Amino acid sequence: MGLAARPGLRALLRALCNRSPRHAFAGHALSRPADSLLDDPAWVDAAMRRSLCLVFDSQLHCFARGGAPAWLPYAQLDRTAEHTAILLGDDAAGRAPLFAVGSAAALAGGASGGFSPLRSLASLASGARGAEALARAGQARNLLHWHARARFCGACGGRTAARKAGWKRECAGCGGELFPRVDPVVIMAVVSADGERVLLARQPSWPQQRYSCLAGFMDPGETLEEAVRREVQEEAGVSVAEVFYHSSQPWPCGPSPQLMLGALGIADTDTITPNLSEVADARWADRAEVAAAIDAARNASRGMDNQRDPNPATLVLPASEAIAHNLLAAWLEAPISSLDR
Amino acid sequence: MGLAARPGLRALLRALCNRSPRHAFAGHALSRPADSLLDDPAWVDAAMRRSLCLVFDSQLHCFARGGAPAWLPYAQLDRTAEHTAILLGDDAAGRAPLFAVGSAAALAGGASGGFSPLRSLASLASGARGAEALARAGQARNLLHWHARARFCGACGGRTAARKAGWKRECAGCGGELFPRVDPVVIMAVVSADGERVLLARQPSWPQQRYSCLAGFMDPGETLEEAVRREVQEEAGVSVAEVFYHSSQPWPCGPSPQLMLGALGIADTDTITPNLSEVADARWADRAEVAAAIDAARNASRGMDNQRDPNPATLVLPASEAIAHNLLAAWLEAPISSLDR
Repeated sequence: MGLAARPGLRALLRALCNRSPRHAFAGHALSRPADSLLDDPAWVDAAMRRSLCLVFDSQLHCFARGGAPAWLPYAQLDRTAEHTAILLGDDAAGRAPLFAVGSAAALAGGASGGFSPLRSLASLASGARGAEALARAGQARNLLHWHARARFCGACGGRTAARKAGWKRECAGCGGELFPRVDPVVIMAVVSADGERVLLARQPSWPQQRYSCLAGFMDPGETLEEAVRREVQEEAGVSVAEVFYHSSQPWPCGPSPQLMLGALGIADTDTITPNLSEVADARWADRAEVAAAIDAARNASRGMDNQRDPNPATLVLPASEAIAHNLLAAWLEAPISSLDR
Repeated sequence: MGLAARPGLRALLRALCNRSPRHAFAGHALSRPADSLLDDPAWVDAAMRRSLCLVFDSQLHCFARGGAPAWLPYAQLDRTAEHTAILLGDDAAGRAPLFAVGSAAALAGGASGGFSPLRSLASLASGARGAEALARAGQARNLLHWHARARFCGACGGRTAARKAGWKRECAGCGGELFPRVDPVVIMAVVSADGERVLLARQPSWPQQRYSCLAGFMDPGETLEEAVRREVQEEAGVSVAEVFYHSSQPWPCGPSPQLMLGALGIADTDTITPNLSEVADARWADRAEVAAAIDAARNASRGMDNQRDPNPATLVLPASEAIAHNLLAAWLEAPISSLDR
């Protein structure tokens, strides 16, 4: 009953998938010590004494200097301050172990720099070392976020305490074990059946011109592909025929530690019926519009243009640290015009 | 430095991906009512009075009859028994709303049947209706599992209570909202660089001949592809070059509600070094061995052979309800012999 996809479109979108682009916050490249070492408090204590630490405040803002996460030698921290400390791992070069520390009070001695939201550091991370530093800070924030939400046992209400250098919590009440987890979220660039347009939506809290891909937390009991279809149907009233996994990204900037599962989809209906209790608007955008917005977002990320376009009619898309940006760019760069009509 | 993959192997494995095979527990096909309805206790109460309910006991075994989940009219339940009730949705045919009920006491009136682990029902679910019933029961179990582990708020230790017909819990202490979540798990069929062998491992608790794919919970801060490489390196000491997402499956039979993210990988090392604190053994299996084991597992699923092969040297693989079975079958059916050597 739906619209038939343009011949060749499925094969073309599928070919874009599973190529693992380099997303922001991916590629932390730390090797976690063996469980036998993490289980030994004396070993962990010794590792901490020769470590470099990344400090977060109670809002989980990251201690930064010059726009980059600032790793401080353990000796410089105030060790009397109560804190959560997580051993992230050793980097490949075998230098000092890296720890995440969740306490602004640990900086009492005074260190030059300040606390910044992680996302504001993303656009400044450049080059392989910058990307790696950002990914390590993202993992640190995800873990600290989990610790803050797992202080009590959900099953019995007992207090939990960190074990395994922060990679486990144990309940004093029932003895239950809790492990760091992430919430899977689907995010999708849904392409029209002719391949020429992509579905965008706007959250009620966003400025008028700001749009992105639709996204949503996965429900228990569904596959990735089913979650994509459900979200797009619920939020935009659009039916999705084909769904292809594209790539994934750890996302430490949301309301919980998230795993973004990025997909491409092909709609088999054209009419959009936005669910106004979920989104402020949903609409199709054509290639010229998206190309201009992607260019503007790239320039903004590079610091070439920190001012938003003053024209209120111009589409504004997420910056390059967001997987939505990369999904839209993948569609834009696909040679759809070469397909049969 | 690693082994080079056989020419054409990457393209062949990639072509197997994103085809969304029908996994057990997928395809529940229920439409969840709008949030505005779920937020209205009177509407939910009226829906429940005309519902069909699936009852689970405290071990989250499913009430079944004749090897299939048994949906009971609400009027047949003992409504004085304290219970968790979750509105799963309406089926497409618009028949009675379906609820999951987490209390064996609700059956006090006496209903013929018994409680069974969900996995033992999987092999009996046949045909489209059987598969759908199994998927609905899986979603029900995932949600009840989450409720049992979210009775207290992890942030403040306060008691939580169900809202939105079971799709949210709210903390009486800090007012925090908790939503049903699933844990992403990677599971991967890792193929040798020549394409002819696949990597299998055995858990310490399993019988000698029983093997499966390697699998593990995702860590905060990594992509799906990074998680595949890390798990295979940690558990088998094998380095994985290429990783391709294949398909996903909701898995309600594990220690928590899980999302199985199935992948194919290509190893670039041949030597296996099993991590004996994680697995009892890891080894390569060739096509003939896997083909025989997949055949035996299929026959066992169909009830044609409930006895395991008495030969202790014969490889035993998971039954067809497990995504590992389908990942291994996908590799087995790929025309690898047609590739250049």
